[in-house]
Amino acid sequence: MVEIQSNSLLIELRRDGGAALHRQIEAAIRDAVRAGRLRIGTALPPTRTLAGDLGVSRGVVVEAYQQLVAEGYLTSRPGGYTEVAIGQEPAAPAVPSEPAPPPMIDFAYGRSDVSHFPRAVWMRSIRRVLADAPNERFLYLSGRGMPELREALAGYLNRVRGASVDPDNMVIVNGYAQGIALTIAVLAQSGARRLAVEDPSADDDARLVAAAAGIEVVGVPVDRDGIRVDLLERTDADAVVLTPSHQWPTGGVLSAESRAAVLRWAARRGALIVEDDYDAEYRYDRAPIGAIQGLAPDSVVYAGSASKTLAPGLRLGWLVVPRRLADAVATAKVVADRGSPALDQLVFADFLTRGEFDRHLRRMRPVYRRRRDALLAALREKAPMLEPVGIAAGLHLVTWLPPEVDEAAVVSAAAARGVAVNGVTPYRLTSTGPGGLIFGYSSLSERAIVDGVTVIGEILSRGGVGSGRARS
Amino acid sequence: MVEIQSNSLLIELRRDGGAALHRQIEAAIRDAVRAGRLRIGTALPPTRTLAGDLGVSRGVVVEAYQQLVAEGYLTSRPGGYTEVAIGQEPAAPAVPSEPAPPPMIDFAYGRSDVSHFPRAVWMRSIRRVLADAPNERFLYLSGRGMPELREALAGYLNRVRGASVDPDNMVIVNGYAQGIALTIAVLAQSGARRLAVEDPSADDDARLVAAAAGIEVVGVPVDRDGIRVDLLERTDADAVVLTPSHQWPTGGVLSAESRAAVLRWAARRGALIVEDDYDAEYRYDRAPIGAIQGLAPDSVVYAGSASKTLAPGLRLGWLVVPRRLADAVATAKVVADRGSPALDQLVFADFLTRGEFDRHLRRMRPVYRRRRDALLAALREKAPMLEPVGIAAGLHLVTWLPPEVDEAAVVSAAAARGVAVNGVTPYRLTSTGPGGLIFGYSSLSERAIVDGVTVIGEILSRGGVGSGRARS
Repeated sequence: MVEIQSNSLLIELRRDGGAALHRQIEAAIRDAVRAGRLRIGTALPPTRTLAGDLGVSRGVVVEAYQQLVAEGYLTSRPGGYTEVAIGQEPAAPAVPSEPAPPPMIDFAYGRSDVSHFPRAVWMRSIRRVLADAPNERFLYLSGRGMPELREALAGYLNRVRGASVDPDNMVIVNGYAQGIALTIAVLAQSGARRLAVEDPSADDDARLVAAAAGIEVVGVPVDRDGIRVDLLERTDADAVVLTPSHQWPTGGVLSAESRAAVLRWAARRGALIVEDDYDAEYRYDRAPIGAIQGLAPDSVVYAGSASKTLAPGLRLGWLVVPRRLADAVATAKVVADRGSPALDQLVFADFLTRGEFDRHLRRMRPVYRRRRDALLAALREKAPMLEPVGIAAGLHLVTWLPPEVDEAAVVSAAAARGVAVNGVTPYRLTSTGPGGLIFGYSSLSERAIVDGVTVIGEILSRGGVGSGRARS
Repeated sequence: MVEIQSNSLLIELRRDGGAALHRQIEAAIRDAVRAGRLRIGTALPPTRTLAGDLGVSRGVVVEAYQQLVAEGYLTSRPGGYTEVAIGQEPAAPAVPSEPAPPPMIDFAYGRSDVSHFPRAVWMRSIRRVLADAPNERFLYLSGRGMPELREALAGYLNRVRGASVDPDNMVIVNGYAQGIALTIAVLAQSGARRLAVEDPSADDDARLVAAAAGIEVVGVPVDRDGIRVDLLERTDADAVVLTPSHQWPTGGVLSAESRAAVLRWAARRGALIVEDDYDAEYRYDRAPIGAIQGLAPDSVVYAGSASKTLAPGLRLGWLVVPRRLADAVATAKVVADRGSPALDQLVFADFLTRGEFDRHLRRMRPVYRRRRDALLAALREKAPMLEPVGIAAGLHLVTWLPPEVDEAAVVSAAAARGVAVNGVTPYRLTSTGPGGLIFGYSSLSERAIVDGVTVIGEILSRGGVGSGRARS
């Protein structure tokens, strides 16, 4: 057998006495440049390397490169390497698929302030994991995820959230989005037909996935205390997605009576409660409220993530599921992607067990509280017609609009002045109610918050954003 | 509003003049210990911290801790902290869900030798990324993945695999498993009814997901040159999953004629080819074979991963898709999990662009080649009745069994002697053919390879593993 290797550049040489070898190499590189497969600026392998790979003498490759340099296809660079000299510039990375340039002041919700991501401390956890992790941790593991992380998270959730977690009933996932997708996949397998969600509620994760799985989604209106359990009881839903500790977006807290009523409903129907505990770590002037999961671990799928505490880009999330569903959810995870990345899980476990997560939250709470306070003060002063609700916790609040004001008109007038703010109405399913604005304040300076609210206050007081209803 | 925070331990205090505050704290901790929510060994917050969180004087917390120490619930530890003293030991991490203890010699396939994972070099890339990445990279991004990684991978695939990749048509995924899951989801959305796969082929990813999506899976027999295109043409499949460069598991290479025929078939039917390029980086004594994707980018979904080159635990994979499908696949990725972890992608991009990936492969090839050579030599010497095929590339080979030998009996006799080897038959759908053994050699020392083959040779030569057919 002739030994031919060209692992660093795909060149198929024919040794049947046809064209000289250096001509074949020239032709292959020339074609690749012309076809755009080798782009301008791409470095070619050193001649010695390529010659070794192809099983030819180095001189053959040198000759080919020299010819192509002479022709202008290649160019020699300082440091002795050769790169592609012509052809298309590399495309500006994926411009069409990236979001539009951000507005100047963006009241976006659903994220931590990533400029405070604890890079140095995270790095120390990575260094320990890369130094200490046994080799087996780099292989495929179970769908549940790394035992180290499940143990650490169970301790955290039991301590801080009043949850009742056995690490065996946890599944590590890539953020809440995958958590709800796997939960709904298991619901669909078990024959669920209808999923109740709060109305208004986040429009992306649960609703998208349920629709794709052929499960009907029904909205149940919320009031200032969260979901209307009396209305939930009239649905024949097989499951409900709740944000009981801080309703998204309106900020209501499900009362003790309503929690008990939801649990009774679930027990009676054999229905599943999905608890989206998305921002429980932030709470400013109210008593802590434990996770509903701690009250009824057999009825609740608890979902959490690091997106609001560390960074959405980590894609770290976790499910705590009733024991009877643990195998099914872990299997769904294996089918979906064979488990979350191993190192990331070990790093987060190290970060948790060393108390760094608690320390990070302790550092961030006063930051977010100051921003919230700045937002409340600015609203009082610059936009007194806006009534804030859901202010005691989380990283956003909602202000209801006066009935004569058109929500969409305010949102678009603000955008025109460089201020991005979301309306509540797009998040409604079938419920009706006042217009409102969702102010995420996690990632804005206090100065930007005041400036943004000032713009919105001016828009509201200058008029021109009246609703059709009010004008008629 | 009363300021109450207890973010580090969930304790709900009532200030209505009932029980004294320290009694309430005692009771809350006692209940949590009894219920197993606080486990033995869990450290409680420092008294100053908890007092601050709860808005009580430090003395109240000190009194509560002292009482619980006296009762034996808590214990004071050197260093001044207090931990839970009684209750269940933390469960041994997830023992029931972990795989059984590994056999002594495991001819497992589908992985790199993770003991050679380049930890130090990977660490350097992580350090650079954590130092340099802009904050926005920690937020949610597009479903396609990090532009840096798509650009780097496109360059690599165009150069090394003869692919024709525009970074805009790539989607970064969590390993091949997620890649095929997303591809099949998009196929199902577009109305595909039938998926052809090679027979035999890997039984997990494509088949599981297709079944879940309601798509019928049909097996098309392979011969020594890969899939039988003449038989594929008789199916009315909407798509086919191929391993054209090294058929899994039998190692055949699809001939130029067959490649052309498959592409004609796909063009005629408007069918999609999914190219699973799972181990293209390893090739020992044959000319390189470019990816079929380079021939027909509009008909082929190309899938690759780092599982066979770096480590399965990274869960790093990539799809190159026809331009018309790029948005749909990226959307499926968003629905599945809102994108792969950001840092991992940036680290791999750095690793690629600095040439570390090429260097790592260059280091590993001779390692794997020596193991393969040891396996071939051992087979010749210790088990001459076994005929190896598919030996020129990859990290595994297949040996066909003589017709009178029962595959399952050999596999189980080997397992009883501490040697794990897979049979080919479990990977067949409907095809019939000789029994065979799949020898993965990537993670075994040359010594272990010889020992394992010796055991199997002994089993075969001592008899007792005859097939019913041969005995009759």
